[in-house]
Amino acid sequence: MTTAVPARTWARHHLLDVEGLSRSEIEEVLAVAVEMREGRAVRSHRSLLDAETVGLAFFEASTRTRISFELAAKALGATTVDLGVERSSVGKGESVVDTLRTLERTGVTTVVMRHSASGAAHLAARATGLRVINAGDGIHAHPTQALLDALTLGEALGSLDGRLVVIVGDVAHSRVARSNIHALRALGVRVRVAGPAPWVAGFEHWPGVEVATTLADGLRDADAVMALRVQLERGAESFADYVARWRLDDERMATASPGAPLLHPGPTNEGVELTAELASGPRSLIGRQVENGVPIRMAVLALVCGAA
Amino acid sequence: MTTAVPARTWARHHLLDVEGLSRSEIEEVLAVAVEMREGRAVRSHRSLLDAETVGLAFFEASTRTRISFELAAKALGATTVDLGVERSSVGKGESVVDTLRTLERTGVTTVVMRHSASGAAHLAARATGLRVINAGDGIHAHPTQALLDALTLGEALGSLDGRLVVIVGDVAHSRVARSNIHALRALGVRVRVAGPAPWVAGFEHWPGVEVATTLADGLRDADAVMALRVQLERGAESFADYVARWRLDDERMATASPGAPLLHPGPTNEGVELTAELASGPRSLIGRQVENGVPIRMAVLALVCGAA
Amino acid sequence: MTTAVPARTWARHHLLDVEGLSRSEIEEVLAVAVEMREGRAVRSHRSLLDAETVGLAFFEASTRTRISFELAAKALGATTVDLGVERSSVGKGESVVDTLRTLERTGVTTVVMRHSASGAAHLAARATGLRVINAGDGIHAHPTQALLDALTLGEALGSLDGRLVVIVGDVAHSRVARSNIHALRALGVRVRVAGPAPWVAGFEHWPGVEVATTLADGLRDADAVMALRVQLERGAESFADYVARWRLDDERMATASPGAPLLHPGPTNEGVELTAELASGPRSLIGRQVENGVPIRMAVLALVCGAA
Repeated sequence: MTTAVPARTWARHHLLDVEGLSRSEIEEVLAVAVEMREGRAVRSHRSLLDAETVGLAFFEASTRTRISFELAAKALGATTVDLGVERSSVGKGESVVDTLRTLERTGVTTVVMRHSASGAAHLAARATGLRVINAGDGIHAHPTQALLDALTLGEALGSLDGRLVVIVGDVAHSRVARSNIHALRALGVRVRVAGPAPWVAGFEHWPGVEVATTLADGLRDADAVMALRVQLERGAESFADYVARWRLDDERMATASPGAPLLHPGPTNEGVELTAELASGPRSLIGRQVENGVPIRMAVLALVCGAA
Repeated sequence: MTTAVPARTWARHHLLDVEGLSRSEIEEVLAVAVEMREGRAVRSHRSLLDAETVGLAFFEASTRTRISFELAAKALGATTVDLGVERSSVGKGESVVDTLRTLERTGVTTVVMRHSASGAAHLAARATGLRVINAGDGIHAHPTQALLDALTLGEALGSLDGRLVVIVGDVAHSRVARSNIHALRALGVRVRVAGPAPWVAGFEHWPGVEVATTLADGLRDADAVMALRVQLERGAESFADYVARWRLDDERMATASPGAPLLHPGPTNEGVELTAELASGPRSLIGRQVENGVPIRMAVLALVCGAA
Repeated sequence: MTTAVPARTWARHHLLDVEGLSRSEIEEVLAVAVEMREGRAVRSHRSLLDAETVGLAFFEASTRTRISFELAAKALGATTVDLGVERSSVGKGESVVDTLRTLERTGVTTVVMRHSASGAAHLAARATGLRVINAGDGIHAHPTQALLDALTLGEALGSLDGRLVVIVGDVAHSRVARSNIHALRALGVRVRVAGPAPWVAGFEHWPGVEVATTLADGLRDADAVMALRVQLERGAESFADYVARWRLDDERMATASPGAPLLHPGPTNEGVELTAELASGPRSLIGRQVENGVPIRMAVLALVCGAA
């Protein structure tokens, strides 16, 4: 999947969502990411974004994702500036759009933004002339996470076409799950969501998505399992009940297809949605997901800036 | 005003205040800023401050101004370091002067500082060997804001000599107003301040400054109008009363000279000191002010470092 | 001590502690630091760490030390990324080891870490593949502070062999004191610790360390005096009592060897552990200590990365 580099056809100035990306667009990102991963070692892309200024606007704090994007931008030679909005005067009345318009007028060309409101990235793309990369908006989308998951999964499974991937947890409130469903579907994957009924409600209407409300039904024949982080402050079920019925461990994973790998967007709540043994065991692709984060973000930055 | 580049005569190691700058010094900053604005597009100044280390010491948080200076320093090739004082151990007993002396001893050559105490930048310049650029000190001065306002206004009006500019709002507590009065006066502009009586008290004694205590008197014959941000936590008058009598809108602006532009240092309180329509309408220079922020700060950094 | 550059023998991938460093290893760091100090002025080392990415992971805030390391890394051309952990999602359940493993997987090669838990840096070195530089862990160690103190002291005294250095204050809770004792002992210095009995308890068993429980006994024949910062939130004695009996001033310093210099790791509590006059007087090496911080950290970074 990632060895054949298609001719560059990417023409988008933003990455707001996976929904709406074609299969060939997704495959182009993955192919460029593989190039970037190899090129990074020999530092062959260090002046690709020399003329760009990338603003990091994390209205919702995230050390991992911010660092991944910051290192991606720096690896391409871009100037970076961190809005540091969670420690700033932003929020004292100034709107997100006003903040981003100001950023644009200081010469920032591309903004990586995370916001607690679903749709914030789309709003930014409509209201400013900035190139916008969505690093997570509310429960809506987290496209670079889904792309790095697709890269990781494709390399682990060899091919994605016709495989069955199950996503376990609070799917309804997860931007990671939503973006993964779009990416996996576009790549020809069968998707199953599994979790307590309120956490998977509504997905029975999504084309090509199966719903399971027991873990046994969820894992049956699954070629790969993606666990979601339990947001301990949410929860239609009590915490202890979720652990008893849904926590993934080696024994339960054995009911999936032989050797089915495990993914998790991190950070994990070990002991809650999965055991520590599983997270660090041979099935786990969690480390590989993080490793693919920087090359995926290098690829997205380069493509969005028309420089790949 | 900005097309003729005078021979370089700038000899200051600091920019603490506009008060005391000669007309030719101000015009030199504006001329260099225009060069920087053009040069930035083709990245011709990217190693001008290659040997300098610029410390960002915002003891009072300001995302906009910090980013504007950070991008200016980076565009000139300087190494930057953000003290991040609002999240630091500073304030746990260590004085500002001790903090800045430490910064100097780590190899920082130039500090951009903002502080809530009027006079803090002067103190820093006296007590350390650092080049000091004042990014706002209490209610005293905000020189780079006044310089970018002068550049914006000069380009909008064609010439400044003999024009009448009115500053509307809480002038008494505004470092922006104070620095603008000095800059505009030095450039031959007639200045009028307008606002509720307690907010303009004392300015009747400033040479060349008129005082108006009604909006109608304030706007009459004005060639340009500068609105100040209402600090909602201050206020000699109630908020509602200010809005009723002083909020700028298109109708009220029509009583100024035809086509008189509007400036505002940002961020705006839309609906309070001005309407959203006015802020984003054809008279508004607010976006242009922000755009001129980076080149003005590039010019100031380069001149103060003796590199322009 | 610092003029003869020994052949490079450094083979460590971490700097976790001074304990265990040989005299020749310490002397090698000091010699490289002198080279770096000279080279920094002419910017001769600006691409030495061009291929390295240095993560700044200050789980305990420290503006001074963070900036010193950040400028050292940048002076060597490394890419830097600030975890900003005190403003981040770290601590919401994710362990330090998980955070650092994530950092490693994003391509960070070397981490500079400070943590309130003694042993945190050792844990990081064992649990990750990162090169780890300890920037302070609990009450255990602060090796770069001890190394910069050794450089400062050696240059002030001419030679260290056989000299007597007294450390005054809460030695028992001080990572600075602990690392200094190891460094000074390795360099052939006689060390005396002096303070209220609970603050020097146990040190009578350290080989080559004398204990004094009055200031007069502490200062007698001392060739140099190192004051520690009084942690105002700790204290086996009342604050006023400490000031009365232990505060260093010019008069008391006169009872040490003639001209004995004064060191302090900073930031000082002037009026508590020493007077403002002493801190800024001719005996004080405090400014020189800060100046030596960046070159020592450049040396450590370069040696640990195998690039010196």
